[in-house]
Amino acid sequence: MDNQKWCFKENSEVHAAAAFTVRNILQAIIGNIDETRTGKPMIHLGHGDPSVYPCFRTSTIVEDALVESVRSTKFNCYAPGVGIDSARRTVAEHLSKDLPYKLTTDDIFLTVGANHAIEILLKVFSQPGANILFPTPNYPLYEAQSSLSPLEVRHFNLLPEKGWEVDLDGVKALADDKTVAIVLINPGNPCGNVFTFEHMQKIAETARQLGIMVIADEVYAYQAFGEKPFIPMGVFGHIAPVLTLGTLSKRWIVPGWRFGWIAITDPNGILHKTGIAGSIKSCLELTADPPTVIQAAVPHILENTPESFFLNINKILKEASDLFYERLKDIPFVTCPHKPEGSMFAMVKINISAFDDVVDDTDFCMKLAKEESIILLPGYSVGLKNWVRVSFAAEPKVLEDAIGRMKAFCFRHAKH
Amino acid sequence: MDNQKWCFKENSEVHAAAAFTVRNILQAIIGNIDETRTGKPMIHLGHGDPSVYPCFRTSTIVEDALVESVRSTKFNCYAPGVGIDSARRTVAEHLSKDLPYKLTTDDIFLTVGANHAIEILLKVFSQPGANILFPTPNYPLYEAQSSLSPLEVRHFNLLPEKGWEVDLDGVKALADDKTVAIVLINPGNPCGNVFTFEHMQKIAETARQLGIMVIADEVYAYQAFGEKPFIPMGVFGHIAPVLTLGTLSKRWIVPGWRFGWIAITDPNGILHKTGIAGSIKSCLELTADPPTVIQAAVPHILENTPESFFLNINKILKEASDLFYERLKDIPFVTCPHKPEGSMFAMVKINISAFDDVVDDTDFCMKLAKEESIILLPGYSVGLKNWVRVSFAAEPKVLEDAIGRMKAFCFRHAKH
Repeated sequence: MDNQKWCFKENSEVHAAAAFTVRNILQAIIGNIDETRTGKPMIHLGHGDPSVYPCFRTSTIVEDALVESVRSTKFNCYAPGVGIDSARRTVAEHLSKDLPYKLTTDDIFLTVGANHAIEILLKVFSQPGANILFPTPNYPLYEAQSSLSPLEVRHFNLLPEKGWEVDLDGVKALADDKTVAIVLINPGNPCGNVFTFEHMQKIAETARQLGIMVIADEVYAYQAFGEKPFIPMGVFGHIAPVLTLGTLSKRWIVPGWRFGWIAITDPNGILHKTGIAGSIKSCLELTADPPTVIQAAVPHILENTPESFFLNINKILKEASDLFYERLKDIPFVTCPHKPEGSMFAMVKINISAFDDVVDDTDFCMKLAKEESIILLPGYSVGLKNWVRVSFAAEPKVLEDAIGRMKAFCFRHAKH
Repeated sequence: MDNQKWCFKENSEVHAAAAFTVRNILQAIIGNIDETRTGKPMIHLGHGDPSVYPCFRTSTIVEDALVESVRSTKFNCYAPGVGIDSARRTVAEHLSKDLPYKLTTDDIFLTVGANHAIEILLKVFSQPGANILFPTPNYPLYEAQSSLSPLEVRHFNLLPEKGWEVDLDGVKALADDKTVAIVLINPGNPCGNVFTFEHMQKIAETARQLGIMVIADEVYAYQAFGEKPFIPMGVFGHIAPVLTLGTLSKRWIVPGWRFGWIAITDPNGILHKTGIAGSIKSCLELTADPPTVIQAAVPHILENTPESFFLNINKILKEASDLFYERLKDIPFVTCPHKPEGSMFAMVKINISAFDDVVDDTDFCMKLAKEESIILLPGYSVGLKNWVRVSFAAEPKVLEDAIGRMKAFCFRHAKH
């Protein structure tokens, strides 16, 4: 009908990058689910969003704060690129509580969730010749975003046999004078681990030795329910400068609100002096902002959410992770080498050779979705083939059901 | 105190790009204001955000919709990268009302305001060797974003003597087989013009002839209050494929809510077939999302905001633009060559040679800010040196006051 020749074409580079996002990978798996056929309701253990479960409902303080912000009619206006002062100041005060120094309004930059913060930071460091150190396993968006930039990525290992601690010798071997930063996610995504004070101090000392900064992804801050307390990386900011990422999403269980921050946790002021803070500001001038109406709710949320809310969420997460870890032992051919201590995730290793007709982690997840209507994230997407990332942030009976189905699946597919 | 050498450095490319954003430019001008010293309250005519004025307050329908969405507690969860179905479907229905064909859910992609939509589209077309056609004058974010991409930018003129119509001969002379798209902003930002049906048809025919698509920035859709009605560019989508940008920001007067969309207004399905729609989807998987809680309010907003609200806003805008245009004639040395017919802006030419000590548009804006506490946007930032962009979206008495102060300023600085 149309012989017109058009000059535009699709962007294959962007497609390739997007293929590495959690949501793109999960879409393929969800596409394999047919609840009517299996007769089993879908159980989504593929991402860190338990907001659908009544026991994980956010505090009414959080909801009230946004309603109040809307009703005031004062926050329909544009906000500055870095965010409104009241929200930046409250985030600074909130983070300062557990730091040996005080953050100011100027240390805080507001973002459209932590994913946007990652995008911004990788753009800041996206300079030809520069390289950055990422963990394996990693949160996939880091890999996806950096694949679109001239930034070179180098990977160090997290060591499952050492509770997913950083392989510091590996880090030292990777870095050179073009290395700008090391990325750490604590509490761990995807590993569910929590770093000790001593280990974090060693990381900071290594960063200092290498002349690089630390990007501390603390999206799961304070969601530590094992033996080790959560310690903000900013505590070691006097050793090496730290950029801390945070969000309301996980601790307040409002991932869809898309509110996050980048904090300059650097008492020596190196990131301000070297212009990194200025570069973050410039990036934020160019990109999307969190809605002013949500920014304006943040002071009320941070100041008034009762401690009991967080304690309860951590109690639920601990019970869920205990249940998950113990019940998983009943399933042959899969192992969780390290009991989760934080975040909402565990990494589980699949003994692929024990299966008759499951060829790898993707195949495992696709078949599990098809036969049991369960969604898990295949390990290849976080950098560990033949593992899966499981979110245990679900109601206990849902989790019981999921493990029962996984067990049946494993037995059904095992070699005789 | 610290002899440590750090390997990271600021990103000067990002700084240079950010220098071209409206908010960065306005910050410098606002920094020159001292209300205490001048005794004059600040009047901000520098951007399109009249939400601070009671007469421009959004409809209570809009506020109620968001409150209801929050109270339902169903929208604290993650949304798909492209947006939630109910919001996409309602935007499709909303836009279809004035199109000769029906859009579907799959034609709509939700963004964090129109700025985010611009960022996404320029990323899609950011392919080495490709070029894109931008108007002069232009909305600055297009220039800022594309300066960070390999996309080559070529500029055609809007003609003030022809009511800011597109110089179509110029467009034809600029384009080649690497040209992918032409960007049009209608109603005009910064010019306040509205294109006629006939002119838009010619633009579409030119685009078809060149094998390029049209990016129709309709951020000010339906805010036309002169003789010419607003016509969506999608009406001509059968001639050449059109990508339409829209937002709640301006028509609903909630710019800080950061809700926008990209619509595939292309009845021949060329943008789906060539993979452009897929590339937009991939880009959205990688970047920030509009909060789910805001997305969920959109169906209610689009379906229930009464026509009387829009009529009233357009009436206020018309009165403001009439007042502005008439009273401006009293000021020597400045001229508005075309009476505004839409959006919230007028371009005003400054006769710099008539002034004693004003060297250019930036100097004009900086001195006006300092002496009269008025904020205007210097024309260089939209591509027209020695012009200024003025937003007339203000209360009448504020606008009267502003023009009085501008007049005093001009007389004070005129050559004797």
